[in-house]
This record gives sequence, structure tokens and C-alpha cells, in this order.
Amino acid sequence: MDDLTLWLEGDRVLTLDQTLLPFQQTVIELTCWQDCARAIATMQVRGAPLIGVVAAYGVALGLRERLEPVAIASIAQALINTRPTAVNLRWAVDRVLGEVQKWPEAQRPEAAWQAACQIRDEDIACNAAIGRHGAQLWAPLLERANLAGRPLQVLTHCNAGALATVALGTALAPIYQLHQAGQPLHVWVDETRPRNQGASLTAWELQRAGVAHTVVADNAGGLLMMQGQVDVVIVGCDRVTANGDVVNKVGTYLKALAARAHGVPFHVACPTSTIDSHTATGLDVEIESRDPEELLFMHGSDGSGILRRVRVVSPGSMALNPAFDITPAGLVDALITEHGVR
Amino acid sequence: MDDLTLWLEGDRVLTLDQTLLPFQQTVIELTCWQDCARAIATMQVRGAPLIGVVAAYGVALGLRERLEPVAIASIAQALINTRPTAVNLRWAVDRVLGEVQKWPEAQRPEAAWQAACQIRDEDIACNAAIGRHGAQLWAPLLERANLAGRPLQVLTHCNAGALATVALGTALAPIYQLHQAGQPLHVWVDETRPRNQGASLTAWELQRAGVAHTVVADNAGGLLMMQGQVDVVIVGCDRVTANGDVVNKVGTYLKALAARAHGVPFHVACPTSTIDSHTATGLDVEIESRDPEELLFMHGSDGSGILRRVRVVSPGSMALNPAFDITPAGLVDALITEHGVR
Repeated sequence: MDDLTLWLEGDRVLTLDQTLLPFQQTVIELTCWQDCARAIATMQVRGAPLIGVVAAYGVALGLRERLEPVAIASIAQALINTRPTAVNLRWAVDRVLGEVQKWPEAQRPEAAWQAACQIRDEDIACNAAIGRHGAQLWAPLLERANLAGRPLQVLTHCNAGALATVALGTALAPIYQLHQAGQPLHVWVDETRPRNQGASLTAWELQRAGVAHTVVADNAGGLLMMQGQVDVVIVGCDRVTANGDVVNKVGTYLKALAARAHGVPFHVACPTSTIDSHTATGLDVEIESRDPEELLFMHGSDGSGILRRVRVVSPGSMALNPAFDITPAGLVDALITEHGVR
Repeated sequence: MDDLTLWLEGDRVLTLDQTLLPFQQTVIELTCWQDCARAIATMQVRGAPLIGVVAAYGVALGLRERLEPVAIASIAQALINTRPTAVNLRWAVDRVLGEVQKWPEAQRPEAAWQAACQIRDEDIACNAAIGRHGAQLWAPLLERANLAGRPLQVLTHCNAGALATVALGTALAPIYQLHQAGQPLHVWVDETRPRNQGASLTAWELQRAGVAHTVVADNAGGLLMMQGQVDVVIVGCDRVTANGDVVNKVGTYLKALAARAHGVPFHVACPTSTIDSHTATGLDVEIESRDPEELLFMHGSDGSGILRRVRVVSPGSMALNPAFDITPAGLVDALITEHGVR
């Protein structure tokens, strides 16, 4: 899986429009800071690490147009405001601004560009390290599966893959690592209602990478584990609190409970920047409720390839749409970061 | 909730086409045994108790056309073959045939009709009894909720409501009972992927009955229980094995695990005919895998009210679609039947 989700051609920043995936693969070019802001706000790019990198290039592109500190501060704030809850976004913008301060005005555009490129490169290296640590952690599981003459069976929820980062992903990094090493594995992909990131994004990128996978309803994981069809569960996460609780896409917790009930290891992969030592426990995190329309309506491709939006919930009934849930630290068997397993 | 899902006008058998719900409310008339067979096969009617009643009327309608035992046996078999795994279906057909044997040929059509009507009436009475027993069981929960100044919060999965039976339903019967008694309650309705019976059928019938409810993704239940927003979980079931394991719509097990983790009572409602004393445990039940297309595609209503089918899973990726899962007896706090709670 050598594909990049964001890449440069000369000094052009290119990425995929993820709102059109998996049905249309459209490359978009980010030519100015407004393009970057729009791509984040409309979720053409998503995934905390990827958003951070796009915002970093946004600041750099802004500096090509304007050099006055007031203008740059205003551009930075506009970028941060696109997804105000994304921790990586603010972190990346601040880091580029900090780098810029060190240079005289004429050199600032280039300094910002280099800082953005460095954030991008660090993301790739971080995920590669997560992949190595995860693959090592799974070696005994893989051996057991091999002895039984079957592939390693991994279940994942949502998309913490290459599309959420610049490359490789977090939760999917060990999978890509083992796949490239020729190890037989098969991934159960949770559909991940209501935004279907599993069915649309994870399935799409696993297929491109040639990794065997099967999409299942979010409801199916308990049965699969009861039937002995899952060797390990791995997910990414949005925040790890000081006590080790994991805040991740809603539904993660149900899989963690089932994994524990059946002795299936439950692993979480993330960069250390996701660890929030200022928040004591998961219960201290405010869980964002997103627009109920995400549940009431569904997007898909009709027979003639046209993308359509259809209502799936009984008209007149309302919905509640919490985006995340909390998996207590006690249910997490391993946290895999770029620095190793803990 | 006095609505009937199946009713008579003179000797005409009427029901709703459930494949068009919740977007279109279309009454269909079953005028011959072939109509009954087609309605079951195409899932215009679904839910084990309702299927049984429709099949019973199917035999009765067949006897209006043909009286030769060979012809009747062939009609009975054709009805049974429409959904071969539905236990109630065979039971209802056999019961009508048994009644018919007791009468001379000329009186058989009327005897069959009366037997079908009796099965229908028994279903209504059975569900009313389940409703009474369930409401009694929930009295302490209701009192506690009332003391806290909030409605009783019930979570349900799939549709075990009036639409799965002739009236009232099984899991929803205690809810309707309490609602009619003026007790404040609110129902969390699991969407129930992949066939969306919660979002389409349960939401529709609760709304008609004026019961407060909110649709949630199947993924949300763990968080809701962690937040103390669920007082009791109730589901119907397809089979209870001799040891008390519950085979029900896939996803039920994950809710039972979460309920146990948070001390939320987990209740199962069904007629005693659902108890299968010939099968030792849930693991002895073969779990039906349904067509993956149920997961790959989604039906809904577009902006102009046209029903459309759209693909939601990445093209080229496959899906596995197990229809049921197994909840171990140890996680079931109460089994509510027409005879009481056990």
C-alpha cells in the first residue's frame, strides 16, 4: 500500500475528494488556503492526521499571498474554525506558525512550506512505525492462525486507514505491513453506521491494496467472535484520556465488550499526539452529537451510477446521532503508538 | 394501539404491504391461497406470528377452491415452502389441516376458516397477555423513573411489534400496554441493519400509536447505557433453545452484553410456541446467512417520494450477512411469555 492520500506535483497539493468515494475517484488540487479550508469543512478530506496536514499546507499557501502577520493570523484562525474540535488541526497550524516566526519575512513562505512537508513526512513515518509495532504484536496470533491453516482474521470499525492519514493509516498500518510481507490475512470491515466509513472508505482502500476483506453489518461482530472467526480487533481513536479510556467512533465500545467476552485481543492504534493527558477519563469528554440527517438519510449510487440521497427512517420519526463512544481502559489490551506498544 | 395488521371485511382478508412501509401505506387483499403464498414469499407480510396466520387463511382459501385431499396437501406444502425455516408457518398450516380432518367434506371450508380465525384470535390474546406480564415486570423500573421525574427509557432492536403479529406485537406489547395506561415512556429504536426493521417498521408503528421514540444507529446502544439513558432492553426472538439461549435478529447479543455491563435488565418477549425444547443450546442452531445484497444496497425514498435502491458498499467489495445471533441464557434477565415471566 504505497498510495498516498495527499501528494505534491511540484508545488501543487493534490488529494482525493473523499465525499465522492467509493463511487468516484476524483483528484482535487488545493491551490490556495481557501481551497484547503473548504476541503476540510466539506469533508473532502477527513481523518484527524490528514486534516492536520491539509491545514498546514493551507497556512503555507496563505503565506504565498499575504505576509502581514494580521492577515496570516486571520487565515490560520479561518483554517482552525473549519473543524473546531479536531485537535490535530490546531496543533498543525500552530506548529507551522511557530516555524514561520523564526525567519525574516521574505523566507517565511518557504519556511512554512517546509514545515508542512515535515508534518506530512512525520505522519507517514509515524504510521509506518505503528505498522511495525502492530505486526510484531500480532506475530503469535498470526502463527496460531497459520498453524490452523487459515488467515489471520482481523475486525476493524470505521476508517483509520490510509484515507484518514497521508499514507498507511493507523489501525490499518499493521494490516498493510503484514500483507506486504506476504502473510495471509482477512479483514472483517464493520459497515460503521451512520456515515458508513467502513463500507465506503475502508473497503475501498483494502480492495485497492489487494487485502482480502468482507463487509459486515455493525451488528454482526458479536456473532463472528462467538463463532471464533475473529483473532484480533483493531481500531484507531480520536482521543485517549489520561486513564487510558479510548474515545472513538460510536460502536467501538460494543466490539470491545464482545472481544472481552470471547477472549479476543482488543487493540487501539494512534499517534501519541492523540493521547490527551489533560483529560482524566472518557466520561469527562463531551460526546459530539452530529446532525440526525446522517442517520435519517443514506447516500449511494443508483443503477446508472448517479449518486442519490434517500430517506431510510420512517418519515416523522426523529433520530439521535452521537458520533463517538467511550471504551473503558480496562477493555483495551494494547495501545499501539509510533513509540511501541503499551 | 388498537390497529390490526391483518383484519377481515366479511370474508375478505386484508393486510398491509410491508415492503412499501414506511413510505407507502398500501392495503392488499388476499383473495386466494396463491395471494397468501406470494405475500409471505415476497415479505409483504413478515414476522413469525403474522406469517402463521396468513398461511392458515391460505389453507382456508384453498379449501374454497378445491376439496380433494391431494390438492389440499399440495396447497399446504406450497404455503410451507414459501419460508421453509419459519416454525410458526408449518405449525399453523398443520393445525388447520388437523381441524379439517374432523369434518365431512362439505363442512371443511368453514372449519378451516374458523380454525384460521381462532389462530388469529389466539395471537391477539397471547400478545395482550405478554403485554400485561411485561408491564407488571416493569412496574418497579417505571416507579424509579417516575421518581426521577423522567419517562421510562426502553431500548428495542428490530421489529417485534404489531407488524410482526396480528396486533400489539411481543416486545412492544408491554410498551403499548403502559402507553395506553398513560405512563410516560420513551423508546430508543435500533435502526437494525441491514434490513432496517427498526428505522422503518418499529418507528412507523410507534409513531402511529403516539409513543415517544427516537431512532439510533445500532452502534449507539452501548453509549446510551453507559450514560444511564436506558432503563430496560426488550426484544422479541425467533427461537429459545432448551437451555434458554435466545436466537434473535443479529445485533441482539451486543445489546445484551452492554446491558449486563451496565446493570440494565435485558428482557425477551415471545409466545411459548417459540420455545424449542428439542434443541439443546443456541450453538446447535444453524444461523441463516441471507443475501449479501441486503447489506450492499439500501432502499429509501428520494426527495420526490420515489422508492430507490442505491449501492452503499464500495463496488467490488463483498459482504457477509448473518441474519441472527445467539444471546446466551445467562445474559437474559427475564423471558416474558403469555403464561408469565420466567
